Amino acid sequence: MPNFKGIIPPLVTPLVDEENLDIPGLERLINHVIAGGVHGIFILGTTGESTSLSYKLRHELIKHTCKFVNKRVPVLVGITDTALQESLALAETASKEGASAVVAAPPYYFGLGQPELIEYYEHLAEHLPLPVFLYNMPSHTKINIEPETVHTLSKNPKIIGLKDSSANTAYFNKVAYKMKENENFSLFVGPEEITAEVVLMGASGGVNGGANMFPELYVKLYEAASSGDLETTQELHQQVMEISSKLYTQGKFGSSYLKGLKASLKVLGICNDYMASPLHQFRSKEKEIIAKNLKEITDKSK
Amino acid sequence: MPNFKGIIPPLVTPLVDEENLDIPGLERLINHVIAGGVHGIFILGTTGESTSLSYKLRHELIKHTCKFVNKRVPVLVGITDTALQESLALAETASKEGASAVVAAPPYYFGLGQPELIEYYEHLAEHLPLPVFLYNMPSHTKINIEPETVHTLSKNPKIIGLKDSSANTAYFNKVAYKMKENENFSLFVGPEEITAEVVLMGASGGVNGGANMFPELYVKLYEAASSGDLETTQELHQQVMEISSKLYTQGKFGSSYLKGLKASLKVLGICNDYMASPLHQFRSKEKEIIAKNLKEITDKSK
Amino acid sequence: MPNFKGIIPPLVTPLVDEENLDIPGLERLINHVIAGGVHGIFILGTTGESTSLSYKLRHELIKHTCKFVNKRVPVLVGITDTALQESLALAETASKEGASAVVAAPPYYFGLGQPELIEYYEHLAEHLPLPVFLYNMPSHTKINIEPETVHTLSKNPKIIGLKDSSANTAYFNKVAYKMKENENFSLFVGPEEITAEVVLMGASGGVNGGANMFPELYVKLYEAASSGDLETTQELHQQVMEISSKLYTQGKFGSSYLKGLKASLKVLGICNDYMASPLHQFRSKEKEIIAKNLKEITDKSK
Amino acid sequence: MPNFKGIIPPLVTPLVDEENLDIPGLERLINHVIAGGVHGIFILGTTGESTSLSYKLRHELIKHTCKFVNKRVPVLVGITDTALQESLALAETASKEGASAVVAAPPYYFGLGQPELIEYYEHLAEHLPLPVFLYNMPSHTKINIEPETVHTLSKNPKIIGLKDSSANTAYFNKVAYKMKENENFSLFVGPEEITAEVVLMGASGGVNGGANMFPELYVKLYEAASSGDLETTQELHQQVMEISSKLYTQGKFGSSYLKGLKASLKVLGICNDYMASPLHQFRSKEKEIIAKNLKEITDKSK
Repeated sequence: MPNFKGIIPPLVTPLVDEENLDIPGLERLINHVIAGGVHGIFILGTTGESTSLSYKLRHELIKHTCKFVNKRVPVLVGITDTALQESLALAETASKEGASAVVAAPPYYFGLGQPELIEYYEHLAEHLPLPVFLYNMPSHTKINIEPETVHTLSKNPKIIGLKDSSANTAYFNKVAYKMKENENFSLFVGPEEITAEVVLMGASGGVNGGANMFPELYVKLYEAASSGDLETTQELHQQVMEISSKLYTQGKFGSSYLKGLKASLKVLGICNDYMASPLHQFRSKEKEIIAKNLKEITDKSK
Repeated sequence: MPNFKGIIPPLVTPLVDEENLDIPGLERLINHVIAGGVHGIFILGTTGESTSLSYKLRHELIKHTCKFVNKRVPVLVGITDTALQESLALAETASKEGASAVVAAPPYYFGLGQPELIEYYEHLAEHLPLPVFLYNMPSHTKINIEPETVHTLSKNPKIIGLKDSSANTAYFNKVAYKMKENENFSLFVGPEEITAEVVLMGASGGVNGGANMFPELYVKLYEAASSGDLETTQELHQQVMEISSKLYTQGKFGSSYLKGLKASLKVLGICNDYMASPLHQFRSKEKEIIAKNLKEITDKSK
Repeated sequence: MPNFKGIIPPLVTPLVDEENLDIPGLERLINHVIAGGVHGIFILGTTGESTSLSYKLRHELIKHTCKFVNKRVPVLVGITDTALQESLALAETASKEGASAVVAAPPYYFGLGQPELIEYYEHLAEHLPLPVFLYNMPSHTKINIEPETVHTLSKNPKIIGLKDSSANTAYFNKVAYKMKENENFSLFVGPEEITAEVVLMGASGGVNGGANMFPELYVKLYEAASSGDLETTQELHQQVMEISSKLYTQGKFGSSYLKGLKASLKVLGICNDYMASPLHQFRSKEKEIIAKNLKEITDKSK
Repeated sequence: MPNFKGIIPPLVTPLVDEENLDIPGLERLINHVIAGGVHGIFILGTTGESTSLSYKLRHELIKHTCKFVNKRVPVLVGITDTALQESLALAETASKEGASAVVAAPPYYFGLGQPELIEYYEHLAEHLPLPVFLYNMPSHTKINIEPETVHTLSKNPKIIGLKDSSANTAYFNKVAYKMKENENFSLFVGPEEITAEVVLMGASGGVNGGANMFPELYVKLYEAASSGDLETTQELHQQVMEISSKLYTQGKFGSSYLKGLKASLKVLGICNDYMASPLHQFRSKEKEIIAKNLKEITDKSK
């Protein structure tokens, strides 16, 4: 099994419209992040708008991604769904196409208790053809995967890690402490604003949206932090915070991060910025601000 | 178009296992509720575990239901989904099989703002082959469809009503007041514990889970309340509360209502009680309590 | 003990500024609501901005209110506080001044469990010189007083009723069903938008803010509903909804109800509209809208 | 003005009972933490059960604390309250007794908007005799002090820092990035599980409950992290996580941290473990576990 660590961008899903992938954009994006040195690629996460895509599109995306990546880096595939059978079907495709692992957040419609969550993941893991990462995303799923639950599930050899997007590092550190005897269990964070510090403290890496745009920056940040180079880490962290501050804060609603990211990728000429319903790409006013801010960021790094 | 009012049970989905419908159970259940006088049937709602079912199963359920119902009462089909394309596909099947309307809760993964919700429903309605009910279910979708949003959307002729499962009748009454000039807009509530009072005050009816078991009771309650017979309404309301109190309160987690309802239908010999993942049917201990409580309820009504 | 039923306005607290009561306004307001036929007066609730007032002011308000009311109707005093000792001190003053009962929401800083809530209320009741109403206000206190908890606490003879401001009538009806054998336990609702229907179904009455302005209307509504006059109830309910719709919906934040109510009382010449920090009275723009809407309401009732 | 940085324990409030301070316990506790090298003392925070204490007790605690500390380290006084006048009165006492600053979380009863929060803090600051720290505690106050709000308020010279207890370090880092030009604005975190990493990245320090018990450990952690000694930081962080894991996880409800901390201080012979209502000290079963776990921790550090 590949060793999961480092920067694994949660790939945006380049779209032409509601029903069609932007295939050339997908290829450019994949080549761009691999050229930037990323350690893996994660498709069909929240950043990939997975839950907004038809199943046909999700299966297509798995196939195209695995083909374009062509084993250069491990591919992780999000199978989060409210219907177990659809999660399993996605995992089948992922396995067949050569992905390395799958990633599953809790089913996000019914409110569940922790024992129900344990039963769900045990049952899911049993039927999966690939190892699985737990994906903690309480703001979207309405449930936190408690540290004790992670610990219990980690005894299942098919459950190999956690991606935590809660941004609650007290939670993350409690999980890490509970898992400290289990070196093979990977611990990733989602929000790029905290990657520097958690990697300094020993985490496996970051599943950071900004790495779609600037993969090298995030890879360097990871390398500095994981090798204990505090000064460089702090410096690169400031660049990440500038990206966060300038690109993810337009728009009024919860998805300003995602809209800003997709708009930026369009400005950078990497892929189209169509967003699947219920989200919508930025209109021209916000796009202009994004373009201006992006220029400030890229000018500085020259 | 049929006039939507009265008791429209949110049908449970009888299952043999994760991948197969309990077809004879479905037929019995449909005949049972129609014999009880219900004014319509709503499939693929929360009570129908819609989000837990594979798409194959959801489309199958629509077909079998429409065939078994055979136009005796209107069929409403839940198309709630996070992916617009899948909602539209379900609506296509519903239309083809002869359903009367569809029902859509907000997409429930991303956190949305009210303007995003309006855009979503407008876009959905435009592509639907059938009229649509808004379905307010904030505990599961993380968003309330604000009264002003309902009012705005009601101007769209394809959007014909609201099913509100919030149990917040201050909200419901605010919507009703805003819609008072629009007599064709139907206003249903989900929780059976409040059907009596909202129908007394003028609501269109109830989409009540208990009507799967005791359709006649809920129909009588509706008839009493809608005709202003306060005394009978109060008396029948007590019976509904007894059902709620004795059958929906076992189990520790959020879905005790649903588990109790399915266990009761099994005890009553109507259909199987398998629940799709991530929920699980009651174990023998809870089933025994349900059976005992159910006997108390049915003995009394003899 | 007085029989608690009917309309008990949650009195606004007329203020000159942060440290001084508007004493003449308080007297006018009390005489106004008593002239309107209210069945009691509740001070120091959420509508009374209790938690925003200094303790000195709260004790003063109790004294002035009891003096002005002069036993014409029962006085209920809110003692909700995070510090038990301060709640008890308020209750002492209430008892000394001749109030009939106190009202206590759960302590609202620490997150509590239901067993902690039971312990709290048992301990509080034991030290109180007056009977106490439970006050359910989950939006502000972060905890719902579960039906089972109400039932447990109702066995304590000092705990004589519930005021529920959750607006969740499924909850309210579950409590009512559990308490059906205990006729002496009073069940009031807060939101005036639901008073009509819950009284029709048997509730004790409403603690409705609008009764500060139009006490007669709410009293008539109560009388119609409690005597089973459905037609009049529906008609008066529409007037209440018009008030709610026109006066409580200005302003962007959670307290638009309270700001609208106080602004209206000022326009009606009853009392000052100063609001204690952290809230602020409406500025002239909103006040003008309130004045215009208020005129529409009062013109109609002529 | 003293330079605020380092470890500032949020002092527990030693109590004999609901109405009386454990004065000798308070003196021992203060001497214990000062002997351990702490950089300041913060009383009347969440850990100090401030909101549960009568006003009389709060004012007494300020006096005794300032007297016992006797200017050896700066004293910060929590003035968080729902009533502005009471906050100001506490601040007056704090100033008179020689405290260095006050700390205020948002008023926690009414739900507020960010503009209302800004108005509140501006108004508060204007009337304060001492500089003030913002205290972000969304789990208890129901409102997050948004990064933009912190930035706006930081322009007020009386508002000198932020204590963030959200545990959301993405939030914390966004604030830090916004404040990077303002070196005099102090940024502290509450949860000790994250102190190591935020100080490594440049934060001012930690307001950590565990420093009541083991002040030296937290001071060493701060010194290692603030001087960039990554290896020592990681090692000491593990000790902090052991404390968190063994002492703060007994009990079922939200306050297990606080109950565990107070029980531990009792076992260590430092002060009494009485807790003010609505919380309750651990019963003997939990106390035994705490004592055993505490022994494991202290044995190891010998």
